[in-house]
Amino acid sequence: MPKEEQKEDDIGLTVKKDEDMSEWYQQVVLKSELADYSAVSGCIIFRPNSYEIWENIQKVFDAKIKKTGHRNCYFPMFIPESLLVKEAKHVEGFTPEVAWVTHAGNTPLNEKLAIRPTSETIMYASYSQWIRSWRDLPILLNQWNSVVRWEFKHAKPFLRTREFLWQEGHTAHATKGQADEEVMQQLFEYVDLVENHMAIALLAGKKTEREKFAGADYTTTIEAVMPDGKALQMGTSHQLGQNFAKAFDIKFIDQDEQTKHVWQTSWGLSTRTIGAMVLMHGDDNGLVLPPKLAPTQVIVVPIIFKDTKDAVLKKTGEICLALRKKGIRAEMDAREEHSAGWKFNHWELRGVPIRIEIGPRDMKNNQCVVVKRNTHEKKTLPLDNIEDSIVELLAKIQDEMLHRSKAILKGSIVAVKDMNALKQAIGDKKLPKAQFCCTVECEDGVKAEADGATSRCLPFEEQRNVAGKCVRCGKESKGVAVFGKAY
Amino acid sequence: MPKEEQKEDDIGLTVKKDEDMSEWYQQVVLKSELADYSAVSGCIIFRPNSYEIWENIQKVFDAKIKKTGHRNCYFPMFIPESLLVKEAKHVEGFTPEVAWVTHAGNTPLNEKLAIRPTSETIMYASYSQWIRSWRDLPILLNQWNSVVRWEFKHAKPFLRTREFLWQEGHTAHATKGQADEEVMQQLFEYVDLVENHMAIALLAGKKTEREKFAGADYTTTIEAVMPDGKALQMGTSHQLGQNFAKAFDIKFIDQDEQTKHVWQTSWGLSTRTIGAMVLMHGDDNGLVLPPKLAPTQVIVVPIIFKDTKDAVLKKTGEICLALRKKGIRAEMDAREEHSAGWKFNHWELRGVPIRIEIGPRDMKNNQCVVVKRNTHEKKTLPLDNIEDSIVELLAKIQDEMLHRSKAILKGSIVAVKDMNALKQAIGDKKLPKAQFCCTVECEDGVKAEADGATSRCLPFEEQRNVAGKCVRCGKESKGVAVFGKAY
Repeated sequence: MPKEEQKEDDIGLTVKKDEDMSEWYQQVVLKSELADYSAVSGCIIFRPNSYEIWENIQKVFDAKIKKTGHRNCYFPMFIPESLLVKEAKHVEGFTPEVAWVTHAGNTPLNEKLAIRPTSETIMYASYSQWIRSWRDLPILLNQWNSVVRWEFKHAKPFLRTREFLWQEGHTAHATKGQADEEVMQQLFEYVDLVENHMAIALLAGKKTEREKFAGADYTTTIEAVMPDGKALQMGTSHQLGQNFAKAFDIKFIDQDEQTKHVWQTSWGLSTRTIGAMVLMHGDDNGLVLPPKLAPTQVIVVPIIFKDTKDAVLKKTGEICLALRKKGIRAEMDAREEHSAGWKFNHWELRGVPIRIEIGPRDMKNNQCVVVKRNTHEKKTLPLDNIEDSIVELLAKIQDEMLHRSKAILKGSIVAVKDMNALKQAIGDKKLPKAQFCCTVECEDGVKAEADGATSRCLPFEEQRNVAGKCVRCGKESKGVAVFGKAY
Repeated sequence: MPKEEQKEDDIGLTVKKDEDMSEWYQQVVLKSELADYSAVSGCIIFRPNSYEIWENIQKVFDAKIKKTGHRNCYFPMFIPESLLVKEAKHVEGFTPEVAWVTHAGNTPLNEKLAIRPTSETIMYASYSQWIRSWRDLPILLNQWNSVVRWEFKHAKPFLRTREFLWQEGHTAHATKGQADEEVMQQLFEYVDLVENHMAIALLAGKKTEREKFAGADYTTTIEAVMPDGKALQMGTSHQLGQNFAKAFDIKFIDQDEQTKHVWQTSWGLSTRTIGAMVLMHGDDNGLVLPPKLAPTQVIVVPIIFKDTKDAVLKKTGEICLALRKKGIRAEMDAREEHSAGWKFNHWELRGVPIRIEIGPRDMKNNQCVVVKRNTHEKKTLPLDNIEDSIVELLAKIQDEMLHRSKAILKGSIVAVKDMNALKQAIGDKKLPKAQFCCTVECEDGVKAEADGATSRCLPFEEQRNVAGKCVRCGKESKGVAVFGKAY
């Protein structure tokens, strides 16, 4: 690659992932053009390279929720202060981070308006008007929108920004049982989305009282473990009980002619999952995107020499077309102002799962060179039925990426029986699991004693281990919790 | 239909469209559950019935712009005041209606933040960093988001609300010619979307200086005429020239090695088009939705009698499935708590283009009853290949709706040669067209003298009529303008 080119574009990463993950992350996100900083402190720009990943996530999840009868809608981004404060715990959880609109033009507003940090309050004010009878239930609504939480900590693209994109589902049901079911149904839709599309292994479980959503009866969560040993919450699904129903007077006449409060759930998954994919899969050459969500799945690069240029470009186009006909998101990079080597780096940085190279010699042998982004493996494949080989290879890459993530998760969890071992595990960048009493006192104690680690969840699959003594106070345990430092 | 049912649900409209269109509009929008008012004055809730129309609009338009190389992205909803004021005319046009965020939590912000009324300024601050060379051009970006314009006039769902949904395209080009082309390409994508999907006939043309976008060199527009004779702007596409490029310092080194400012365009179409469809197509029974955008295209209603119930329900399900397999958005209404008559009213109010009724007698004759929502025509069709008949009928309805709209447009435009005739036409709820000098003086004059009518556009197809005297001042005309009162 000519030197000026490299310098001009400065496309490579200047730090290794395991040397300084925070700096590496920032470089990958900016240089792969996923995101950019904006003129508004703490807010990022979702450039097309990340927005298209979000569009793919939307397609997958939207189809899932529509299949189970949910419908999309759009509520105002504004919430009058008087509504926001109606549910006492909810307001306590959110107001410190609320952005307030106080003026329109030069006119002060009569009542200040919050920009939604989440839409429970504005939506449920309507639910109380729409719901009269059991016939109106369940209500199964979802919104794709952006929310604002004015954190004062240092921003990190996707992972912690003041405005982010998400979906928020909000349902109302006649019985607690139906709401419980909905909570779990959506949590496991998230599990499928994250494990089988994002290729990130998960712990699914319940949050402790302290860590639950402000206003919920209980919160379920999916937690991933990043290669640096920190936990990352990927989505949550809440049983809201009748808390909001009572605050917003959402009642219905049931089939038995009794007037009852509804049972509600809410659940959300955001663009921070994009940050999780960057952290989980990326390497020293840049992004590594899971095939199912990658905007471009295959990049075809012609190896151009003067005398064979036309023939090679023609063949490149044919391959690209054959792949597309098979439903593969394939692009070709036929630009003449860049060398093949420059293009290899360019598309590796952007995480395209498969690169196909084709030059005059390959053509003669009716073959092409195929490079897997995740493992850097290179092999030669026949051009006949190349589209079928690529479909298979994309599935294989998807699979390998999930397996790698599963291994990281498995290697991170260590069972501990006392606080010393717990602290040691945190120091070793592991996630200790232990019997836990779940009291606020012990939550605070662990956090103070174990370098800021918190309980991430009580994983469902660990709860067979009933009966035990809390790792910290030795009193009766409520279950097995996993602890960790978190993004 | 039993009386209590009718009373309980209060589903019918209590006013006729041509008696009080404003009250009719409000009733249709609320009772068909397209929208509802919210706790925030001037902001509406897009309920699933309207949001799904918007999703269908998005699908159509998104495919169009992606085919021509545009990509979606997302910029922050906030614009620092210092950015918003950078382009002098732009700020003048928008600041009176800006909602300002001044506090986060209890902390006053250092600089107040506008909620985007449109995203030129926040986007172009980034364009100035991203664009260096002719190789970086064109930039072809689009956003699907919501914007806020704090109007103090009375709100009207979809047509005038403080927050609305739209898409905003923002492109940058190396030459004026390329930007001109982009302006027209997008305008005619809108024409196709509105005429061939929304079934609304259009005038396409240029805005006068006075009516152009704040900060543009010129604005092109598509204007529709509602059945009450008022004009409704359906979308606009702006040539921004180098105005923002100069304000935001967006420069590139061209192939000739000269440093130049880029040429820019922006173009937007919003959820107000949903209001236009309601006004244009609705009737005394409620909504009439164009088949291409209707969330439900066919509702299948079984006529249930006790002894034939199972057989009829089975057949209804089969028909529904056959239609869906053909790609038709069909639903069945098998609810037992409502009569068939109640269901007919329910789905007519919601504008479903085709109703299929099937009862035991129809089954015996291997036929069904089909009712067209737009004309109320009822006919009997054989069940064999019903899906093909319905595909044809949906296309016919789409066609008829556009033709009706075309007739309304044609009947509304009247050529006038003096101000008396112009005023008369406005009084008659027509749209006068006349030679016009396009000066601010005559614009103001027409508005004052003709009951608030304004120039809607200079339609492209009228500009063959060159040379003439201005309808008001008698001086040299700039072209043929169409005037009207507007939504």
